[in-house]
Amino acid sequence: MAVLNGKTRRFSGVFAPVITPFGENLSPDAGRLITHCRWMLSQGVGLSVFGTNSEANSLSADEKIELMDALVGAGIDPKMMMPGTGCCAITETARLTAHATRLGCGGVLMLPPFYYKGVSDEGLFAAYADVIQRVGSEDLRIYLYHIPPVANVPLSIGLIDRLVKEYPTTVVGIKDSGGNWLNTSAMLDQGWDDFRIFVGAETFLLDNMRHGGAGCISATANVNPAAIVRLYETWQDTGAEGQQQQLNLIRDTFGKYVVIPALKACTGHFSGDARWDIVRPPLTPMGTEDKDTLISDLNNLGFGMPGLMAMTEPAA
Amino acid sequence: MAVLNGKTRRFSGVFAPVITPFGENLSPDAGRLITHCRWMLSQGVGLSVFGTNSEANSLSADEKIELMDALVGAGIDPKMMMPGTGCCAITETARLTAHATRLGCGGVLMLPPFYYKGVSDEGLFAAYADVIQRVGSEDLRIYLYHIPPVANVPLSIGLIDRLVKEYPTTVVGIKDSGGNWLNTSAMLDQGWDDFRIFVGAETFLLDNMRHGGAGCISATANVNPAAIVRLYETWQDTGAEGQQQQLNLIRDTFGKYVVIPALKACTGHFSGDARWDIVRPPLTPMGTEDKDTLISDLNNLGFGMPGLMAMTEPAA
Repeated sequence: MAVLNGKTRRFSGVFAPVITPFGENLSPDAGRLITHCRWMLSQGVGLSVFGTNSEANSLSADEKIELMDALVGAGIDPKMMMPGTGCCAITETARLTAHATRLGCGGVLMLPPFYYKGVSDEGLFAAYADVIQRVGSEDLRIYLYHIPPVANVPLSIGLIDRLVKEYPTTVVGIKDSGGNWLNTSAMLDQGWDDFRIFVGAETFLLDNMRHGGAGCISATANVNPAAIVRLYETWQDTGAEGQQQQLNLIRDTFGKYVVIPALKACTGHFSGDARWDIVRPPLTPMGTEDKDTLISDLNNLGFGMPGLMAMTEPAA
Repeated sequence: MAVLNGKTRRFSGVFAPVITPFGENLSPDAGRLITHCRWMLSQGVGLSVFGTNSEANSLSADEKIELMDALVGAGIDPKMMMPGTGCCAITETARLTAHATRLGCGGVLMLPPFYYKGVSDEGLFAAYADVIQRVGSEDLRIYLYHIPPVANVPLSIGLIDRLVKEYPTTVVGIKDSGGNWLNTSAMLDQGWDDFRIFVGAETFLLDNMRHGGAGCISATANVNPAAIVRLYETWQDTGAEGQQQQLNLIRDTFGKYVVIPALKACTGHFSGDARWDIVRPPLTPMGTEDKDTLISDLNNLGFGMPGLMAMTEPAA
């Protein structure tokens, strides 16, 4: 399960980039988000709200701040939260990061500025350094976010090394969503002190744990949390390989579709609340046929989301 | 020069994605921006503030709104402004677009939501449609912004066709920064009624004018405005090819470097104000050696920015 080390304030375990529910008018629905977060926590999964799979980059900074306030206001433990705060503009990133830190969030997941392409390591270092300086808090814990397939702005090992050496108690980990195990293992080999390396998909969870990694932050943890947490907790057991294969079967089932609408369609089905189907443009909801096939395939694998239906929404 | 047709409110001419001056603390400097805009207008160039080359995506929404207000408040004619308003989140795009429209801006330049990649035309259509609906103003004029090398989210001709047909008096033009003349000419061949096609570099200006295009919106118009405007106004004259070659020489000189820092270094040199060198991370300022070579190469080409030095900043 997701744990924040009390002394160094560093995360380990399984996190989900929590999917964001929208209403008919495409506004984020704080009530349903709170409910989903409670279910995630009940399954042992930490809350990377505002990740890529949260459609975070389809939310304005104001909307993210309102949702953070609503979650913490509803009693969700901020120490279990690692909100995504990286925007294109350093001033926006600093604003969200300072807010998350003030709320007591255990850490933040920080994309590099991702509009301008082909930028130098020096420029990316300056961007992170500027945000750290603007936030100016010893409580800040940053998990870098390497996701070249989407951001198209990779974080090189040289850049990470420079950040870790300059800010050893602030830049404390990374999510590697590059999908390239060679890159993850090269980072694991660097020997950065207590640096927490999370893989961006549970596909690499067993490999990561065997090489000293910290866990995973994975889209599929929104729907298959308990099984992923179980592998995280028992990776040294003999059945670990079999567990990994089972996780991969579920993940591959979602991998046949655009993942965010598929995760939401699945959550809608198993929670009995079809409003989960709604996504913000530029994404489009899953079509009925694809949805039927997805659910049927999941049923054939004995998949379920136990306890989700029983979660009750907080009073408005 | 840049012109807004009084009846249909459609732009033609030469526009600059106006470079944004920053202070030592990396805050935008409204005073110097006003001065630069006044100089642009004096050269016959329209104001695409908050374009890619304005480092607009390194500014927060609040910063853009403050700058828009400062410009209009200082007496800059909003009818000559085509601010960039496209963000990752439709709510942020709608907020900026509504603000620009309320201020009386002649149009807005709108990136598609650019974080999520590989999205469908249907999703992009829904994003633009949602913003148009949220803004809900007959005064709104949108110029689409096709810039695949940076946004990595291209706008297909099929998508543009659907938008033009659904919103014929709102979606009135495009900036094509793809750098591929075949794409521009394919758009020109569509016969969309009074649709204003701007090329994203003056390199294609003569070709564009010869095929019925509306002008160009070009980074180099920040530094070489008069010569670009002259070709726009005299493209049917015999000397046009020669003019185009001269423009290309200047543009190629900038093309040897990362263009935004180079434009700013040039402006700093010819205005006598070295603060122009400052860029926001993830960009880095131009190095001294590169700067010396750039200025020397420009001097050899007889390049200058006449009148810039004489512009005086408004009182703070």
